[in-house]
Parts: sequence; structure tokens; C-alpha cells
Amino acid sequence: MHPYRTHSCSALRAGDAGSTARLSGWVHSKRDHGGLLFIDLRDETGITQIVIPAGSTVMETAEHVRAESVITVTGEVVLREEGTRNPDLATGDIELRAKTFEVQSAAAVLPLQVAGQEHYSDELRLRYRYIDLRRDKVHRNILLRASVVASMRRRMTDLGFVELQTPILTASSPEGARDFLVPSRMHPGKFYALPQAPQQFKQLAMVAGFDRYFQIAPCFRDEASRADRSPGEFYQLDFEMAFATQDEIFAVLEEVMSGLFTEFGNGRTVSAAPFERIPYARAMKEYGSDKPDLRNPLRITDVTDAFADSGFGLFARIAADGGEIRAIPAPGAGDRPRSFFDKLNNWARENGAGGLGYITFSEAGGQGPIAKNLEADRAETIRTRLGLKAGDAVFFAAGKGLDVAKFSGLVRTRIAEELGLVEDNAFRFCWITDFPMYERNEDTGLIDFSHNPFSMPQGGLDALNSKDPLEILAYQYDIVCNGIELSSGAVRNHLPDVMVRAFEIAGYPESEVEARFGGMLNAFRYGAPPHGGSAPGVDRIVMLLADEPNIREVILFPLNQQGEDLMMGAPAPVLPERMKELSLALNLPKPKPAAAPAPKKD
Amino acid sequence: MHPYRTHSCSALRAGDAGSTARLSGWVHSKRDHGGLLFIDLRDETGITQIVIPAGSTVMETAEHVRAESVITVTGEVVLREEGTRNPDLATGDIELRAKTFEVQSAAAVLPLQVAGQEHYSDELRLRYRYIDLRRDKVHRNILLRASVVASMRRRMTDLGFVELQTPILTASSPEGARDFLVPSRMHPGKFYALPQAPQQFKQLAMVAGFDRYFQIAPCFRDEASRADRSPGEFYQLDFEMAFATQDEIFAVLEEVMSGLFTEFGNGRTVSAAPFERIPYARAMKEYGSDKPDLRNPLRITDVTDAFADSGFGLFARIAADGGEIRAIPAPGAGDRPRSFFDKLNNWARENGAGGLGYITFSEAGGQGPIAKNLEADRAETIRTRLGLKAGDAVFFAAGKGLDVAKFSGLVRTRIAEELGLVEDNAFRFCWITDFPMYERNEDTGLIDFSHNPFSMPQGGLDALNSKDPLEILAYQYDIVCNGIELSSGAVRNHLPDVMVRAFEIAGYPESEVEARFGGMLNAFRYGAPPHGGSAPGVDRIVMLLADEPNIREVILFPLNQQGEDLMMGAPAPVLPERMKELSLALNLPKPKPAAAPAPKKD
Repeated sequence: MHPYRTHSCSALRAGDAGSTARLSGWVHSKRDHGGLLFIDLRDETGITQIVIPAGSTVMETAEHVRAESVITVTGEVVLREEGTRNPDLATGDIELRAKTFEVQSAAAVLPLQVAGQEHYSDELRLRYRYIDLRRDKVHRNILLRASVVASMRRRMTDLGFVELQTPILTASSPEGARDFLVPSRMHPGKFYALPQAPQQFKQLAMVAGFDRYFQIAPCFRDEASRADRSPGEFYQLDFEMAFATQDEIFAVLEEVMSGLFTEFGNGRTVSAAPFERIPYARAMKEYGSDKPDLRNPLRITDVTDAFADSGFGLFARIAADGGEIRAIPAPGAGDRPRSFFDKLNNWARENGAGGLGYITFSEAGGQGPIAKNLEADRAETIRTRLGLKAGDAVFFAAGKGLDVAKFSGLVRTRIAEELGLVEDNAFRFCWITDFPMYERNEDTGLIDFSHNPFSMPQGGLDALNSKDPLEILAYQYDIVCNGIELSSGAVRNHLPDVMVRAFEIAGYPESEVEARFGGMLNAFRYGAPPHGGSAPGVDRIVMLLADEPNIREVILFPLNQQGEDLMMGAPAPVLPERMKELSLALNLPKPKPAAAPAPKKD
Repeated sequence: MHPYRTHSCSALRAGDAGSTARLSGWVHSKRDHGGLLFIDLRDETGITQIVIPAGSTVMETAEHVRAESVITVTGEVVLREEGTRNPDLATGDIELRAKTFEVQSAAAVLPLQVAGQEHYSDELRLRYRYIDLRRDKVHRNILLRASVVASMRRRMTDLGFVELQTPILTASSPEGARDFLVPSRMHPGKFYALPQAPQQFKQLAMVAGFDRYFQIAPCFRDEASRADRSPGEFYQLDFEMAFATQDEIFAVLEEVMSGLFTEFGNGRTVSAAPFERIPYARAMKEYGSDKPDLRNPLRITDVTDAFADSGFGLFARIAADGGEIRAIPAPGAGDRPRSFFDKLNNWARENGAGGLGYITFSEAGGQGPIAKNLEADRAETIRTRLGLKAGDAVFFAAGKGLDVAKFSGLVRTRIAEELGLVEDNAFRFCWITDFPMYERNEDTGLIDFSHNPFSMPQGGLDALNSKDPLEILAYQYDIVCNGIELSSGAVRNHLPDVMVRAFEIAGYPESEVEARFGGMLNAFRYGAPPHGGSAPGVDRIVMLLADEPNIREVILFPLNQQGEDLMMGAPAPVLPERMKELSLALNLPKPKPAAAPAPKKD
């Protein structure tokens, strides 16, 4: 007989009654029942009930074993009595009557319980992550993650992509975030950097003649953590395709994402391919966001013309001043009480707006403070343009440029939530396309790249040489699911002269481009195919699928928010001889002077 | 029509003649042929011949395009004339008659050629790796590696293993090699370490209740490079199993390795499972190595007794002095000329031995310098013990302990090579088992761990408390293929008290064990399953399959031997503000004083 187990803890059934079995696992719980001892024995697959009969020779050992100890039990499989069967448990028809009972590993008093739903602090959970990970929800999250990653790999391979491993010890990368640095022992005073993404290497793989690359790529950014970004490291499904059009890149990711979300969505609705494509400019107008949540059916409409020179002076003045008035429909909100509108008005003020104007519609036409001053035909224009009817309402956001766009987006979200209009149990994907190549830096007033400087400008060199930079669009896109950006991507700029000119417009002289990106620029001088790709975040995808708001719930051994590994003790000081070997010395910030002790009173 | 290609460069066949096709790829070669221009157009899949007819409107562009430029050609597929077809090329029946010809990316003069077999320095190849990788052999190696890794994943998944991602920014690990360190910006004076292996994390995953873990794991060691070890980073197929016996661990790796080597072995013979298991002590005796190459049929035999008190004084004295005489058979070498034996004698001296004694056997019995002094019945004993016959020979290694074991292993290898006895086209696997837990440190004379301190000692706590430490074996094993160690592995020690005692024997007080390995030791106090595993090196496996002696031939973008990335420029100095942000200062070694200039003679 196997020294540890003949079956897993989820395997035994009524048909096994009468046979001898051996199980190993963790003591999930223990119950004393009039002399009999019941133990729920748990492994990764499930739970089997162990019975130690009164007077058993193993009772002494079993009685003293603590929860979460690892034990091996051999005994007879017996049918449970009618009425004590547990239909919620795969093994609920039987129990194992212990004949031998071996403690493989005795557990000390636990800092956190595995059975049950008790809430523990992040600090405690991460310090004892190896116990925390036994808890059902987080254990299933990690297994889900493994399945999602395996499915990604299979789907990419099926589409002809080849997984390559790009370097982790590499040069500082131009993505813009802060690199982690690794001092080189062999080259005193020099450092490697950990990659923020394999961006340059995947483009070099294209230049090297690999046709379709992908990688579940570890990426590193020395940035503050957020709920959806782990400090330190994260993974993305990086891919790149040679000789590909933007539509082909979209088709690949649509097939992978709709397949993946259908496979693991647990019955939730998933957008069918092709996903809706929304140019950036239209997204900002109709959704007030470049990350629109398409589960929200509301669309924003520009109604500036309806207020221009109207009787509602506030909006008329904004329109006259070059501002815009955007209307957010609120179907069915027409008969809400005054308090509903007041609450939203207060919410708008808290979010920095002057307030939140509205019109309600009845059979008699527009109602409310704005309608009082607005000509009836103008109110009617708004109603028909938005397709509203009696019993509906409309809210207005007014202001200039990006401000009014973003605020109308917030209103759209809030109204849909208030009215319960957001679709449940659905994953709604879209592409945001045609991002501007450049933007004006608010602080410096200068022209800067708005996204990835390595994207191909639409119109190529001609456009760069002849158009207003702020009018130039890029083959740059985002994929968005339920209002969450999963990834940027682009058709890349593979032409050195176009790249040099693109950087020149953003204020970088050729010498600096050569110094900073010489590796890739040089590569493009020896025959580079047109190429493009994207890199959706693995952690965010798993968060969506697991319906978890915090990224640490889907990572095996995450750092805490301060970037510490409390379990293993990282980061940690290093020995002086290691520092010397690395040709480094500490240059610690001066400690703040301690406050002078208060004079003693005696 | 697709802007870049309707077909790949390996797709067109005689049946496509008459149709219009568009291809994109690299200009592999160009030939001018009486006014016609021929271009071999290459993509990752193959080559198609392009013809530019004399007088074509695209001739001007085509004539000036350099090799390795990326082009797109549209034209008519035409059958090649009889006699000009190329049966070695999948597309050899046709050619594409260019009507349009677009240069997507013009190549500059190349630092190394892609077509042809020219040899280039490592430095040049790595600096222009994106060109080097277009060359057939190395490109195929990288694709092979991708297929091998994908197959590993599939095989492990099929066996019920789950791939988990362990941290890369972590704490300094106890493997013993030098860690790469990563300064923490948020925690001045503290450092992360890059993992030498996910050893601790995979064991913690077992404690966390994951039953079968695997990972294609990036590992990092700040060690000098060797032909079979890349500086910096490398990958291993790390796996670990809960509640598993050593035999079960062996069965997993046997199934994966025999499957993998059969799949990619290109017809080469592969050991069938189960692989031969050779205890360490026997390996050292019979093979003179703990990494025996089983393609070599020779076995070493101890013949000390045959020389004890014999007429051959040199060996008799060695035997009397506690030394050993080991015999290496040389079947068929009996009639080799004297020069054969002299050459081997010289080789032995170059390798630090006193010489290489031998006996040849004829029908008349033993011959040669040793046989002259050795009693005939003793020579006969040796002959029969080794199963030799007239026409064979035997060589002798004499000395003490590990020295004679290792030297006899070298002789075994050399003799088999000289006699052409090493099996061709085969992958021969074996397990080396039962490594000693401890060894005596030659320098200090103290007891030290011989391998992984976290392996379970055979006999457990009892053995540690009662046996001579040098007699204690561990559940520690290696898997060896063709004389190359692919991996160590072990059934782990999951019992804190056994671990503390094991370290105590090696001279580490409990306080130090707690300080250095507290994370894992603590985890074992909260219920740990018995577990074990291994971690075969991915790079070495691909080297074997690709038959490449240098690891850089199977890595996409390797560092050079000095740990530099010549293409991207890593490692590199960092800006002073980054150093300040990391609370670091350089502490460079003092430059050696320059030699005083020679006094000028005038």
C-alpha cells in the first residue's frame, strides 16, 4: 500500500464501502460526538469524513492533533447512516473508519484559521501566506489563474504564435516608469535593469524574423502600488506579429479574449468578436472616457446648439464662451422625487462641478429649474435628439474640452448605477482606436507624445512633416473590458527616419534618440518588417474573472503595499562584504532630527 | 488584397500557377542572369524565388535593394521551366513574376551575412543578434527551444501539475551561489534578491496545499559563465509533489524526459522508463563518476585483491597502503601497437597520474610490463573477473579514495572514445541515488552538507542521532543524460526538529538556522506534507537535443561571457539622481596606478 494515500480526499463513494483506503491531508476540523471523534480531512481536491470510534487505539493520538496538522489515516470505507449523509460533499455518502492514524506534521497553534470565513488583516495573511493559501477562495483564485494562463498559452499556440523568453537582466527601458536596477559585480559602477515590459525585445524578435511571438512575460516597475497594480512585478500576455494589419492584431486578441472569458466566465455573457471599435475622439464624446464600460447602455449627446442663445443664461454663456453642454439621458427618472436630483447635485459639487442641471419630461413637456427658463422647443429638441419620452429625464454637464468630457463620463456612470441600468453578469469588450500621437503637456506647454513613442503615426512621414502635430493620429489602441483597460497596443513605427522625425517633434534631438534607443533604431536599419501587437495584463484579467477587487487575491506570493515580503523578509540589509563586492556604499537619507525631549517637571 | 501577403514564402505550388500572389519577406539573395533578376525571398517558413523580367518597371527599385531588406512583391505565379526546378525547395516548382515591388525597410550594408555558412565572432553575433537570429541554424534552435518548453508544459499539465508563478523580487536564498541584488527605493539600505531557484517558494506552495506544482522558472545566479551555464539568468523545469515517494517523483520525470527526448530526438534512441538507478557509491566504483555516460559500455572493476602481496610491487605497495587498484577493460585493444599504449600513458601523466599500466591478453595469457612481474594466476583472475578474452586488454588506475575513483572514470571515458565504443545517436538516462548527506570539508576538516541541506536524511532523526554523519545517506538524487547532470532533486525534509538537528551536525546553531531559513522553518510548523521534486535545466536539455556545445546557441538574446548585452548596452552607468533615489553611492575599486612614463630620450 502507498505510504501516504490510495485515494485523494474527494475520491471515495458509496461503491467503495467495505474496502480499505488510506488518505492523507490536513485536519480541516474536528468534532467530538459522544465518544466518537469526527475529522474532516482535506486535500486540494476535497474533504472526506474520518471517524475514530470510541475506544479506538488511535483515539489518544487523534484527540490531541490540532487543526491543520497533516495526517495519514488508514481504515475501512463505511456507508454513512441514512440521515447523516451530506449531499453537499462529493464523498458525503461515506466515511473512513480509522484503524491507523499517523501524524506527518503536527501544527502549532494557528495564527489564522483555514476553515470558516473569518476576516484577517492583509499583514497577517501575507505573513502566513502558506496558511492563507489553504483557504478555499484564494486557493481557487490561484488555480483559476493557472488555468487562465494555460488557456492563454494554448490559444496563442493554436494561432501560430511561438513563446520566446526575453531577457530579464537587461538595459534600462524607455517605457517611462521607473526601472528596478541590479548592480553588476563584474562591471563596477554599472547596473542592469529589470524590464518594464519586453517591448524592445519583442520588436527585435520581429526584426530577427520570428513571425508571431508571444510570452507570458514577467514585467517590473518600481512604482507605488494600487488596488489593480502590484508593487514590483506583474505579468502580461505579450504578443507581436510581423506583416500584420491593425485588423489582424484585433482579430487575434478578440479570438483569445472572447474564448478565454467564455471558458472561465462561469456563464456570464461575453462580447462576440469583432468587438466594437470606438475612435478615441468619439469615446470621449459619447462615453466621456477612453475606458468606456459598455455594460452601461447610456450615451452622451452634445446639445450645445440647443442652449446657444437660449433663455437658460448659464449654459448660453458657456456655449458663447466656447464651452459645451453634454446631455446624459436618464430613462425612467422623470418621476423621481426632488431628493433624487438634489442628491446627485450634491454629488456633482463634491466632484468639483458647479452642480448637475437636469430636465424631467412629462406629457406636458420639460420640467424643472432649467426647463423653466429654456424655450419649450429647445427642450423638445433635446428630448427628441436623445430619444426620450414622458417619464424620462436628462442631466447636463457643461464646461470646456477634456473637463466637460470627463465629467459627463462620471455622470453617465453614476446615473446608470442609480437607475440600475448596468448589465449584470457580462463582459463587454471594445477597442479604443486612433489615439492622438501627441498632446500638449499641461505643465510645460510643449508638444509631447501622448502614448507610446514607438507607434506608427497615421500618414507616416508626410503627416509628421505637414500636419499640426496635435491633429496627427497614431495606430495606437486600447482594449477595454467593463471599463477596465486590459492593454494598450500599436502598429509600431519600424522606419528609422519616421522615428527620428517623430521624436524631433516631441523635442528630442536625433543624438538623444540614438543614445537612448540606439539598440532598436539600429536594428531597424537592417531590414525590419512592419509589425504590431499588444500585451493584456494577466493579473487584471484574472481579477475580472475571479471578481476580485484587489490584485493580491490573484497572486501566489504577493508583496504587500509597501513592497515587502513579510513571509521571507524582503527587502533586507546586505552584508558589508556583498556591498564591497558590488562596488557600492549606502548613502542613506539623513534621519529627521528627533524632537527635543520635553523638560522634565519635578 | 492583404497589404503584405496572400501567402507565406513556403506556400506556393505548381497548382497555383496562373494566379496572382503577394509575398513579403527578406531579400535572402539576389542573382543577375542576363537581364533577368532573381531574388530568393525568405520568411520564417521558407523561400520563394522572385523573377524580375528584363525591362520591368520595377527593375530599377529591385536592382538597388540590398540583401536583408524587407520587401513586398505582387505578381503572377508561374511554373519554372523544366530543368530549372529545385526539388530541395518546397516552392521549387514555381516562381513569382514581380509586377509590383515595394521596399518596406531598406537594409544598410550588413555587418554579418544571413545566407551562407560564414563564421563570425561571438561578439559580432551578439551585437547584431537580430541579424544573427535570421540565420538558419540558430533560428531553428530557438524554435526548437520554444517547442521543447511547450511540450514540457503540456506533459506536466497532463500529469496533473499546475503551473504557478513564484516571486522574482524576493529574499536572498540559501542555495549557496551568489544572488543578484536589487536595491529597494522605498526601503533605503535594503535589497531584494533575484531567486537562484524557486526552491523555498515551491516548498511553501506544498505547505499551502498545492498538490503538484511546476514552473518553467527563471533563475538567477551571479556566477562566472561556462559553456553550459549562461551568465545571469537561466530556466529550469521546476516541479514539486506532495505526499510523493521517491519512486513517484522518478516516474514523473521519466515519463516527461523519455517523451520529450523521443519527440525531439530526431530518431535517436532514448532510454525507456524506468531509467537505471545507480546508488552514488556504486556509480563512483563502476563508472568513476556521479555523472556516468551510459552510452559508454565499459564498467570499472575493483581488482585490489588481485594485486595485494603480488609480484607487481608498485600496486602491491599501494594495496598494502590502503589504496585501491581499479581495472578498466579495453575489449579488442590487445593487438594495438605499443604506440597506442604509450600515447595513453602520456595522456595519463598529463592528467596528473603516474602513468597508465595495462595488461594485454593473448592465448598465451597476460602480456606487457605489468604481466611480466605479476603472477600468471593473478592475471588470469583479472581476465576472468572482467570477462575478457584473448585479444582484449585491461588498464589500471591505482590510488586512494576519490582520486582513484575519478581517475578511473577518466580512463573509462578515454578508452571508450579511443576504441569507438561510445554509442552514437542515443540519449541514455540514469538516476544517481542515495547521495551522502554529509562530507568532510577538505579545507576545514569539518563536517559539511554534501548537497542540499533541505533533503530528508535516510533514517530521519534516529539516523542523525545515532549514526556516523559520514555514513548517513539522503533521499537526494540526480538525473543524468549522456554524462550530463540535468538536475538534482530530493525528497525534502519537512520536519522542523529533523532540520534543526541536521544543521546542528553541520555546525549551524539553531539561532542561525532560524535567522537564515526562518520563513520556511516556520511554515513547516503549521502542517507540512511530505514532499519532493526536482528541476531539470531547460537550457541543457535544449543543448542536448540541438546537439550544441554552447548554451548561447539555444538562448534568444544571451548575455556574452562577460555578462554584457552588447546589443542593448547593459549593464550601464546610471544617473546620479537614480543613485540618490536608491540611497546608494558608488564605491569603486581604486584604479591601479599607471606605470610611470618612460623618460624621454632626446
